[in-house]
Amino acid sequence: MTHQVDMCRPAAVEDEAVRRQPEHPGGARHTVRAGAVIVDDPFWSPRIATIRDVTLDVQYAKLRDTGRLDALRLTWVPGQEPVPHIFWDSDVAKWIEAASYSLATHPDPDLERRVDEAIELLAGAQQEDGYLNTYFTVVEPGRRWTDLRDAHELYCAGHLIEAGVAHFEATGKRTLLDVVVRYADHIRRVFGPGPDQLHGYCGHPEVELALVKLYRATGNVDYLELAAFFVDERGSQPYFFELEEQRRGTPGYFAAQPPFDERAQRPEYFREYNQSHLPVREQTEVVGHAVRAMYLYSAMADLAGEQPTSGLAPAVRRLWDHVMRHRVYVTGGLGSSRENEGFTADEDLPNAEAYAETCAAIGSVFWAHRMTALTGEGRYGDALERALYNGVLSGISLDGRSFFYENPLATPSHGPQVRRSPWFGVACCPPNLARLLTSLGSYIYLVGPREVLVNLYIGSQASVVLDGARVRLRQTTDYPWGGRVRVVVETDGPARFTLALRVPAWAPRVRVTVGGEPVDVAGATADGFVRLDRRWTDGDAVELELEMPPARVYADPRVEADRGAVALARGPLVYCFEEADNPGLERSAVLREAAATAVPHPELPGVTALAVAGVVEQDDDWTDLYRRDVPPRTTATTLLAVPYYAWANRQPGQMAVWQREVVADPGRDGHQD
Amino acid sequence: MTHQVDMCRPAAVEDEAVRRQPEHPGGARHTVRAGAVIVDDPFWSPRIATIRDVTLDVQYAKLRDTGRLDALRLTWVPGQEPVPHIFWDSDVAKWIEAASYSLATHPDPDLERRVDEAIELLAGAQQEDGYLNTYFTVVEPGRRWTDLRDAHELYCAGHLIEAGVAHFEATGKRTLLDVVVRYADHIRRVFGPGPDQLHGYCGHPEVELALVKLYRATGNVDYLELAAFFVDERGSQPYFFELEEQRRGTPGYFAAQPPFDERAQRPEYFREYNQSHLPVREQTEVVGHAVRAMYLYSAMADLAGEQPTSGLAPAVRRLWDHVMRHRVYVTGGLGSSRENEGFTADEDLPNAEAYAETCAAIGSVFWAHRMTALTGEGRYGDALERALYNGVLSGISLDGRSFFYENPLATPSHGPQVRRSPWFGVACCPPNLARLLTSLGSYIYLVGPREVLVNLYIGSQASVVLDGARVRLRQTTDYPWGGRVRVVVETDGPARFTLALRVPAWAPRVRVTVGGEPVDVAGATADGFVRLDRRWTDGDAVELELEMPPARVYADPRVEADRGAVALARGPLVYCFEEADNPGLERSAVLREAAATAVPHPELPGVTALAVAGVVEQDDDWTDLYRRDVPPRTTATTLLAVPYYAWANRQPGQMAVWQREVVADPGRDGHQD
Repeated sequence: MTHQVDMCRPAAVEDEAVRRQPEHPGGARHTVRAGAVIVDDPFWSPRIATIRDVTLDVQYAKLRDTGRLDALRLTWVPGQEPVPHIFWDSDVAKWIEAASYSLATHPDPDLERRVDEAIELLAGAQQEDGYLNTYFTVVEPGRRWTDLRDAHELYCAGHLIEAGVAHFEATGKRTLLDVVVRYADHIRRVFGPGPDQLHGYCGHPEVELALVKLYRATGNVDYLELAAFFVDERGSQPYFFELEEQRRGTPGYFAAQPPFDERAQRPEYFREYNQSHLPVREQTEVVGHAVRAMYLYSAMADLAGEQPTSGLAPAVRRLWDHVMRHRVYVTGGLGSSRENEGFTADEDLPNAEAYAETCAAIGSVFWAHRMTALTGEGRYGDALERALYNGVLSGISLDGRSFFYENPLATPSHGPQVRRSPWFGVACCPPNLARLLTSLGSYIYLVGPREVLVNLYIGSQASVVLDGARVRLRQTTDYPWGGRVRVVVETDGPARFTLALRVPAWAPRVRVTVGGEPVDVAGATADGFVRLDRRWTDGDAVELELEMPPARVYADPRVEADRGAVALARGPLVYCFEEADNPGLERSAVLREAAATAVPHPELPGVTALAVAGVVEQDDDWTDLYRRDVPPRTTATTLLAVPYYAWANRQPGQMAVWQREVVADPGRDGHQD
Repeated sequence: MTHQVDMCRPAAVEDEAVRRQPEHPGGARHTVRAGAVIVDDPFWSPRIATIRDVTLDVQYAKLRDTGRLDALRLTWVPGQEPVPHIFWDSDVAKWIEAASYSLATHPDPDLERRVDEAIELLAGAQQEDGYLNTYFTVVEPGRRWTDLRDAHELYCAGHLIEAGVAHFEATGKRTLLDVVVRYADHIRRVFGPGPDQLHGYCGHPEVELALVKLYRATGNVDYLELAAFFVDERGSQPYFFELEEQRRGTPGYFAAQPPFDERAQRPEYFREYNQSHLPVREQTEVVGHAVRAMYLYSAMADLAGEQPTSGLAPAVRRLWDHVMRHRVYVTGGLGSSRENEGFTADEDLPNAEAYAETCAAIGSVFWAHRMTALTGEGRYGDALERALYNGVLSGISLDGRSFFYENPLATPSHGPQVRRSPWFGVACCPPNLARLLTSLGSYIYLVGPREVLVNLYIGSQASVVLDGARVRLRQTTDYPWGGRVRVVVETDGPARFTLALRVPAWAPRVRVTVGGEPVDVAGATADGFVRLDRRWTDGDAVELELEMPPARVYADPRVEADRGAVALARGPLVYCFEEADNPGLERSAVLREAAATAVPHPELPGVTALAVAGVVEQDDDWTDLYRRDVPPRTTATTLLAVPYYAWANRQPGQMAVWQREVVADPGRDGHQD
């Protein structure tokens, strides 16, 4: 399998990208926009090409065939099927956003035409006053902004705004940006601190981070202030959602139907569910619906950078520390429970029952990226890559045609087989994956006034301005299969800046050279980055080598689900055992004493597997269900693990990230029949 | 704690008991009725006294206070609360049955008065034609026998019949027996093979075994034939319940409400749920609702003995072998799933999620007892005592005041605390426990034409007729804490019979003496009993000694939930670990190499605990949720296990029957801080 080189972006657009690099009032490091980074990477380019060539087409067809596009014509009448759903606008918006990122680096007239048509439909659906929401225009007209908790109205607005900004930045066209600016201005009139304005906020955070993007794209600080208003109002008492419900006199959209009807009896349930239980600055634990949490914290991190005196930075750091210390799966998955699609209790991380919604892992990428921008610390990038290479990427099949909504860490022994689906009734995850992967270039580098952080190791070229000079970085790497990274600096003249390379916490040994000269890594490392502050000249080459031995991962013993178990990892990849490679998997255990070795996978091209010695308990000498004093007989085996992201791409069967680890019993183990 | 000697039964009643020993047409071994056995046992007598002194009172008060007794006055009118429930008659019946067994050995005028009053209410509720069911008389009059699948009408009839038989045999009074005979005669007119009769059967088996009892009490073979009719009709096609539903045109009582409404869409679900998916002789796997299954199989075993050519014996043996090989918990609990209160798949035996309804374990005692009567084999008694001493007895608190409906084998780590309740909306378990324990004497011995089986080791005296002679057996034992059993034969003259003592499969070594002379146990043992065939004279003493070392129990590796884990047992008792004795329980493991030792429990008087060396994983050196290559540090500990039946009688906390077992890691384990 060869990868498709992703280098067709014309130089003119690159210059444009450089020209439009924003000045950030917050002073924090800023993202290099998707269009200004070309991904050219043996691991990622084929996957992004699949999104471009397959996924965007498949998803467009779904938008069309399920009626989501037609709904924008506003011709729906009561009794007609399908009934436009409150989420539908957001699905269209995320597809436009994903397509726009793709257009930024890969012009495609046919795709652009479909994007333009979809935008035309959106523009046509916009009301005189700027309002734009299919559901509340045709299905429940007259009930605008009456069910902020459940009806996802501002959430859909947020996705439209993100799409408008992405489309503008990718294509330079203002068609959708103008639409969303008018809508945002409408929202700004409806919401705010004024006596005639609604002091509310959305049950599903999203519009907040979108408004920050709109502010950055337009420079209009009103949007930043509206984002801050929404964040600041959240959780203030009396609770907006409860006042709203009293005013309305009827249950919300979800609260009217099972299973939410029962939960709606417990206001405190819904408060935590949508993170409005406390003012955000007083929140110390991540709770509730995981995607909502991630989007809220992303906006908080944005605002903390834009408004350094807002007091949001300590809160968002606290929330980060809490989730990463107590409530995240080893795959970067988030949310232990299907019941609330979210968080439960500290260290409650069941494997087969894990919800770990793809969108939550994606949301954690958004948040982690903003935390790096805010703090310049490497640990956020460590978490970002853990989510990206594991809990996010597992959400999409290798062929780009099917998706996981939930990403369990094990299959149930007696439940139905776990397989990806081509689409979902609530279709947030597929286009969310598409927009993340088509914008992946924008997550690789972060630029500060005198520094550029290389936060992800992905082959790429980026154009940035540093020390007043235009600098191009050319990164090549064999990541994630190997830890060799080479960054070549191209610049018209010498420029002084810090080139900072993230040192993942998982790397036991790190070597760095500049122009072939070794660097004192320990001395140059601060906050998780090797920081190379020097005057760079054209052609300077930095080489980083991260040692990437197969590793055993153990969980804090407080995590019941993982007690006595081990997971395998190598570099950023977490591995899992599939029945396809391991007959009798469910009766197997890994031997503690054995070293795991990296080997090419016999069936999955290009994939490095891990092999490790183990034992299989035998069941052929059992005459009764239970017996006394004679433990199960074992035979020796070699277990083979594949990267978690690659699972469920062959025949269905058992899977486990965490596998029981045993110390060999000299009296029993390892004897072949 | 001293036990209350249970010996106040007057000799006159004993003679009566002997006189009324039935001749069984089936020729199989028969039960010695509760009234003819006096339990006098340090382990059981205090528990039975608690039932008598506390539980029967508490339950009577519940029957009264919840309206179950008043409902029998048939004064309910629509709109009145509470609405009599379809189960209510059975709750009253089981209480009368339990109280009757108690009266058989412990006359109590006040209890007898309450029983008489309840019987009077039942008699008053009986209709002209013999019909007797509160719900269908006042709540849905005119709908008799239209919802056999869901409405428990014959089930309630069965419990009334059992109560009538028990009351008659205990007191000699015919007041309730006459009522249930009239009702049974009514049922016999309604159901049967005739063209004008209903060819149906009950969704919840129970009436079948009750009719066998009524036949044995009255000698009227019509009842036996009706029982056989119900058993034979079950599962014949077209399916009665589906025809019934078509005729009725509305969903059944349960099928009309969640969660059954959804399941009702799948007829095959309900067919298995109530064991009507196949004719009973073709059934090879235990499926569906566990209590229904146990009651059905009990009736099949009864009928197999009564009608040796019925072909039921092979079917019921097959079903027994299947459940015991694949679907029973180590505690004797039955039913893995709350969803159907029953069976799922082979080896699907989750611990914290175990349903293991108390009534199902009780039902397995009924079934096992009948299997011993049918076959004379000891393995059924092994299963009976496993259920009795573990999964049944765990259903009631030590103080007799609260009950488990479900008997999980572990507590959930992050769920609510597990505690017994004083009562349940569906209140089958508490009176079922009461009636089993007050009739416990009847499970100790089985009598055949020339043999008496000592099936349970419980201190007791029994009067039986063997070889034409009246024989009294006096059993004394320290069971279940010790394995010493002494049986003294008292007889007016010499009598030739086989005294057979069950040899539990768990006993590694067994010694038997008669009159102090050792017996060749291996030579005398057949089908799980040491069979002592001789001419017995007055005062002959048999001594049995079962070695009872602490044992480790392992599950077939197909049982996912128990992989890598061990349970402790000693004799008939299965043990569990409670947090009350084991701080850090959830992070503990048992060392494979260590021997468990029997020790007095420091808090639970008279209870033998098991102590075993283990390790506790330490969580104080964890700074992150996951770490690479350094397994959790452990410290040495001693774990203390209590009998499973005794759990949840102190402060709430974690509990586990199965505990992780590890081989000591020389590099890490066992080092104290």
